Amino acid sequence: MQRKFTLTEKDIPRQYYNIIADMPNQPLPPLHPGTKEPIGPDALAPLFPEALIQQEVTPDRFVDIPEEVVDTYTMYRPTPLYRAHNLEKLLDTPAHIYFKYEGVSPSGSHKPNTAIAQAYYNAKEGVKRITTETGAGQWGSALSFACAQFGIECEVFMVKISYEQKPYRKLLMNTYGATVHPSPTSLTEAGKKILAEDPDSPGSLGIAISEAVERAANDPDTKYALGSVLNHVLLHQTVVGQEAIKQMEMAGEMPDVIVAPFGGGSNFAGLAFPFLRLNLTEGAHIRCIASEPASCPKLTRGQFRYDFGDTVGMTPLLPMYTLGHNFVPAPIHAGGLRYHGAGVIVSQLLKDQLIEAQALEQLECFEAGVQFAKAEGILPAPEANHAIATVIREANKAKEAGEQKTILFNLCGHGHFDLGAYESYYQKQLQRHEVTAEEIAHSLSQLDTPVPA
Amino acid sequence: MQRKFTLTEKDIPRQYYNIIADMPNQPLPPLHPGTKEPIGPDALAPLFPEALIQQEVTPDRFVDIPEEVVDTYTMYRPTPLYRAHNLEKLLDTPAHIYFKYEGVSPSGSHKPNTAIAQAYYNAKEGVKRITTETGAGQWGSALSFACAQFGIECEVFMVKISYEQKPYRKLLMNTYGATVHPSPTSLTEAGKKILAEDPDSPGSLGIAISEAVERAANDPDTKYALGSVLNHVLLHQTVVGQEAIKQMEMAGEMPDVIVAPFGGGSNFAGLAFPFLRLNLTEGAHIRCIASEPASCPKLTRGQFRYDFGDTVGMTPLLPMYTLGHNFVPAPIHAGGLRYHGAGVIVSQLLKDQLIEAQALEQLECFEAGVQFAKAEGILPAPEANHAIATVIREANKAKEAGEQKTILFNLCGHGHFDLGAYESYYQKQLQRHEVTAEEIAHSLSQLDTPVPA
Repeated sequence: MQRKFTLTEKDIPRQYYNIIADMPNQPLPPLHPGTKEPIGPDALAPLFPEALIQQEVTPDRFVDIPEEVVDTYTMYRPTPLYRAHNLEKLLDTPAHIYFKYEGVSPSGSHKPNTAIAQAYYNAKEGVKRITTETGAGQWGSALSFACAQFGIECEVFMVKISYEQKPYRKLLMNTYGATVHPSPTSLTEAGKKILAEDPDSPGSLGIAISEAVERAANDPDTKYALGSVLNHVLLHQTVVGQEAIKQMEMAGEMPDVIVAPFGGGSNFAGLAFPFLRLNLTEGAHIRCIASEPASCPKLTRGQFRYDFGDTVGMTPLLPMYTLGHNFVPAPIHAGGLRYHGAGVIVSQLLKDQLIEAQALEQLECFEAGVQFAKAEGILPAPEANHAIATVIREANKAKEAGEQKTILFNLCGHGHFDLGAYESYYQKQLQRHEVTAEEIAHSLSQLDTPVPA
Repeated sequence: MQRKFTLTEKDIPRQYYNIIADMPNQPLPPLHPGTKEPIGPDALAPLFPEALIQQEVTPDRFVDIPEEVVDTYTMYRPTPLYRAHNLEKLLDTPAHIYFKYEGVSPSGSHKPNTAIAQAYYNAKEGVKRITTETGAGQWGSALSFACAQFGIECEVFMVKISYEQKPYRKLLMNTYGATVHPSPTSLTEAGKKILAEDPDSPGSLGIAISEAVERAANDPDTKYALGSVLNHVLLHQTVVGQEAIKQMEMAGEMPDVIVAPFGGGSNFAGLAFPFLRLNLTEGAHIRCIASEPASCPKLTRGQFRYDFGDTVGMTPLLPMYTLGHNFVPAPIHAGGLRYHGAGVIVSQLLKDQLIEAQALEQLECFEAGVQFAKAEGILPAPEANHAIATVIREANKAKEAGEQKTILFNLCGHGHFDLGAYESYYQKQLQRHEVTAEEIAHSLSQLDTPVPA
C-alpha cells in the first residue's frame, strides 16, 4: 500500500500549460470601464511588467518557465502526492482518494507558484517594489517570500481587521522583509477617503486592492501583483496539475474526479487544467469540481456577466460568474474564498459545462477537515476543507453506488495559522452562512454592466 | 547548483542505529533513587512497554524498524536535505552549508520519528492510553498525532502557562483527538499537592512529568512516553542521520562539521550519531557540535554526575551532564531546550571528548533565524535557531581562515507556532539570558547524588 508518490527536481515542469489554446470557446474580451469597448493588453502596462501582460493574452499552448524560476521552485517542488488510505478506511469507501499537498511551500500554500514567477519577471524588468493586498495573509506572505528571493521590496496592504486579528501572518511577512500596512491607510487617496468617512473602518479586500493599485499606478518603480483570477496567475499554477499527472501515473490510475477549492480560480485551475487538457484533446472524461463556500457561491448561484474585478470599480470589466462587485460575503474563516467573482477562463469553462461547481457550508467543511487531520496527520487550511468536504461527499456516493471511483484533490495549504478558526469550530461558535436568494438578487440588481448574449 | 536532495520511500532506513555498540566507554548504569544501587530494565516496566525497555538496554548495533512504523514514516519521510546556497551567498562564506529539514512532519518537527515508534509498540502490547507531559507543545503534538495513527488514547499534561499562552499547539493536539490538561491538575496526587500549596501555580515541566508518570504508574492500561533523553528515544531519531548520509553522498561531499540544537539529546543524536559512527569505526574526523542555550548550559557548564531526570526526583538516577534537577532555566522561547540535564549516551560521548558543545544566547539565535528565513524561505523554530547561530559562527570562521568547510545542520522544525516569540524579538522585548556561575554552583550544591570517579 504505497502512501506517497515522490518526484525529484528533474520532474518539475519546464513549461506552464495554457488552457486557452484548447478551449472550444474563447473567453470574451475585457471591456474598458468607461467606454465599455474591448481593451487591449496595453491597458495593463502601468500595473504589470511586460512579460506578465504577454502571458495574460498569449494564445500559446505552452509557456517556458525561466530557469531561475525553476531553481526557486526547487525550494519546495515537486510537492508530494499522497494516497489517503487512512481516510478511505475511516469512510469505509471503495473510492481511492489521492491528494496533492501544496502546504510544503515556505509560506504554506500553493500561492508561491505564481508569486515566484511574478517576482522574477518584475525583477528582470527592473521593478524595485511590488505592492499587493492581502486578506487572511496567504497571498501576502507568498509574495513577501518571493520578493525576498529576487531582491525586490514588497509592500502589502492587509485588511485592518485581519492585521489585528491574525498577527502571525503579518509577522511572517515581516520576517521575509516586507512592509505591511493595516488598510485603509493615509498613504493613498483611496485610503484617506475611506478614513475621512469612517476613521475606524475595519477595511476590506476591495479597499486594500484600491490602495495597492493606486501605489503602483503612481510610481514608475512600483508594480502591482494579484494572487488569483487573472490568466497569467492561473497559468503559473498549472505546475501543480502537471506534476500530479506524473504522480497518478506512478500510482497506476487516473482520477475519475478532481476537486479543488475555489476562490478566484487559481487553486482550482492549477490542479484541474492539465487534466482538463486530457478531456479536451484526448477524449478523457474526468469530472472537475470546484468547491466554493455557500456564503459566496458565484459559480453555483452567480450570474455570467461583465463585472469589475475589485469592489471600488477601478479594473477593466471582465466576463465572469459574479455575485456583483459590491457583494460582501459573510465572515467565514476560509478568507481565501471570499471573492465575489470567478476568473475569466474558469467562468467560460463553467458556462460551456466543461467543469462543475459545488457550494459547501463551512460547518460541513470544518467537520471534514478535522476528520482528515486525524486520519492523515496534516491540518488543512479552511480553504482546503472545502475540497475535502466535496471529496467526502463523492466518496460516500461511491460507497452507496458500490463503485470504485478515483478521486484527486488539491490540499492547497496547511492550517497552522488558522487554528483560531478551528477553536471557534470546537467551541461551537461557528455560524452557518448560506446566502439567501434575495441577497444575491439585490447585489446583482445594483450592476449596470453588460450581460453577454 | 542543486538545491535539494530528494530520496524516495525505498530510502527510508529499515534499521535504527544504536551507537552504544560502537562507544569506546559504555555509559554507567542508572541507580535506584533510594538504595543508590544499579538497577535493571525491570524497574521501567510500570512505565514503558516491553519492546521499548528492550531497546533502552540493547547492545545491538542495529535494531529493525517494524514495517508498520516505516509505513507511517512515509507520511513525511524521507525528509529533504537542502544546500543553503542563498545563506552562503548572504554570509559571503567559502563554506558549503547543508541542512536536513524535519519540519515537513505533520506536527512540524523531528519528534514524530520517536512518537510513531513509541505509539506503535504501545499499541502492539495492548496499551490503551499514553500519558506524557509537554512544555511548548512540540512533543505533545507529535505524540497526539502518532497515537491517532495507531488508535490509542493520548493524555497530555501541558504546563499551565504554556496552555494559556500557546493555545494553537493545544488545539492541534485536540484536533488529533488528544486530551490536554493544564498542569498542575487535581487529577493526580502530585498535582493536588502543588495546587494546595499554590492554587495559582503556572506549572512546570517537572510537575507535568510527575503528573503523567503518576497516571501511568496507577493504571495498568496506561503507559508513559518521553520525547527525549532516554536511549530508545535517541535510537529512533537516527533515521534522520542515516538519510542525511545518503543525501550528502548525492551531493558529493561529506560534512566536516555537524550541528544540531540540544535539549535532552534526541535532536542532536538523530543527526549526529550515524555520522559519529564513521568517526568511531571508519576513522572519519567529523566535528559534531551540540548547540545549547546559554540560559541552560548543561553541556558546557554543567557537572557530570548522577542526577534525577525529573524535577520532583521520582526517576532513577542517571549519569549525566546536569545543572541540577532543581535548576529553573530562564523563560527563553526555545522551550524544547529548557531541560536541566543531558541524556546518558550524549553525556558519556561529551565526557570522552567525542563530541563538542557550544552555548548560545537567544538574541544571537533569533538574529540568525531571521537571516535564514529571508535567505532560505523556511521560518525556523526557536530551537533550530540555536543550530543556525552555530552554523553562522562556523561559516564566518571558515571565511576568516579562507577554508572551504562543509557544514550540515538539523533544521529540526518550523516556527509557525512560535511567531509570538519572533514578535517579541522584533519589538526588542527579548532579554539576554546568560546564567551566572553563582546560579549554577548554587543549583549543583543542592545535589546529594553520587559523583562518578
